[in-house]
Amino acid sequence: MTGWLRIVGLGPGADAMRTHEVSAALAAASDLVGYAPYLARIATLPGQTAHGSDNRVELDRARHALALASAGHRVAVVSGGDPGVFAMASAVFEAVEHGEPAWRDLDITVLPGVSAMFAAAARLGAPLGHDFCAISLSDNLKPWSLIRTRLLAVASAGFVIALYNARSKARPDQLQAAFTVLAEALPGSVPVMFARAIGGDGEKITLTTLAEADAGLADMRTLVMIGTTETRMITRSDSRPFVYAPRSVEAI
Amino acid sequence: MTGWLRIVGLGPGADAMRTHEVSAALAAASDLVGYAPYLARIATLPGQTAHGSDNRVELDRARHALALASAGHRVAVVSGGDPGVFAMASAVFEAVEHGEPAWRDLDITVLPGVSAMFAAAARLGAPLGHDFCAISLSDNLKPWSLIRTRLLAVASAGFVIALYNARSKARPDQLQAAFTVLAEALPGSVPVMFARAIGGDGEKITLTTLAEADAGLADMRTLVMIGTTETRMITRSDSRPFVYAPRSVEAI
Repeated sequence: MTGWLRIVGLGPGADAMRTHEVSAALAAASDLVGYAPYLARIATLPGQTAHGSDNRVELDRARHALALASAGHRVAVVSGGDPGVFAMASAVFEAVEHGEPAWRDLDITVLPGVSAMFAAAARLGAPLGHDFCAISLSDNLKPWSLIRTRLLAVASAGFVIALYNARSKARPDQLQAAFTVLAEALPGSVPVMFARAIGGDGEKITLTTLAEADAGLADMRTLVMIGTTETRMITRSDSRPFVYAPRSVEAI
Repeated sequence: MTGWLRIVGLGPGADAMRTHEVSAALAAASDLVGYAPYLARIATLPGQTAHGSDNRVELDRARHALALASAGHRVAVVSGGDPGVFAMASAVFEAVEHGEPAWRDLDITVLPGVSAMFAAAARLGAPLGHDFCAISLSDNLKPWSLIRTRLLAVASAGFVIALYNARSKARPDQLQAAFTVLAEALPGSVPVMFARAIGGDGEKITLTTLAEADAGLADMRTLVMIGTTETRMITRSDSRPFVYAPRSVEAI
């Protein structure tokens, strides 16, 4: 029996935002490996084994998945969103590089998914419609000084900014600190968008400005987006405004 | 009859990388509007009308789609990849803002898709596994001086860079100029990845370095990615190396 490993992205909360090839890989797998709340979003089929784990053990989880594939299992490692964006794909390759030499020649494929910032952008309109970036605010894996440097670099250069891992119970303070850093480079009128649990239970969008942004609105399921001075709002009579980035940009 | 507008992302070349909700919207539409080569990827159903157009008429196409929806049609505006990433969503909202006041209250929804950089990253391994950005190299809609400023800002701050609209027959020179700018901030050993037509006919991946990168390898179907000094390569006996960004980053 030849094993394989598929590192799949479930997309945002809704199954409707999953790709056809990810659904097929989940159906073909003998073993599902991932953070327990993501596994809970998948209906396990007869004969499948689900291996749920805690959030902070990515490398252990990756090694476990590689060992299973090596032993002939058909393994799907699941991430929310896209597996290549602050998720399991890097952890699996890190485990491959530093693990058993035979793991390098396993049948390993990454199947992309819709990452949170695109689902959030779609709900809002098209706020990422021009140059943009994604930054993880977690300082577990990089120093805060580097996060600060990056925030200032992209804000000064006019990128729309998507903040992943913006806030959690273990890291309640980075997001407000990030708003303070961004205020050094951006006017207070720049739009700030909180997009919580898009496509899932408890979906919520909040539009505000950098001057008024309250980090307390974010939790671990919230993607935070910072617009630019070019970001446009289209008011509507009965609904939230559409937010979009114009396609053309003048010199800054 | 109540019309609607869905701005949908087909994902990369393969139908397998399309989401379930996009497939459903395409099936429910009365009219399909888009750049002709994207429409050619969809099997038109009986009763559906396809309105194909040239590449450079986004605003005209957007207004046409809005007028159809306003007249009661069920309209899907299609983009390759994700509609919010250098694609039709911004053009539609620009047309809404400056068009008929009634267009603001139409039923308009954006359905996200897998953007080219994530499909490219998935084929390569996980090169976007840490902070990253996306920049369009087209200077049709912004001055080259701004592109230069942005390239230097993100390269100096250690972002992985995905270049959209890297090269076309009408703009053959920007990509090599971008490599020259990047060389001011990055060592020549930094990995450069050319990902052409991922999931489609003529798919091709080329791995090289900034010092050796030849812009001639790119055409209008090529996504170009620039790694960082942290990017890792995992050699394999019979295949292309896996490329990934480690999850942890030291100060730069």
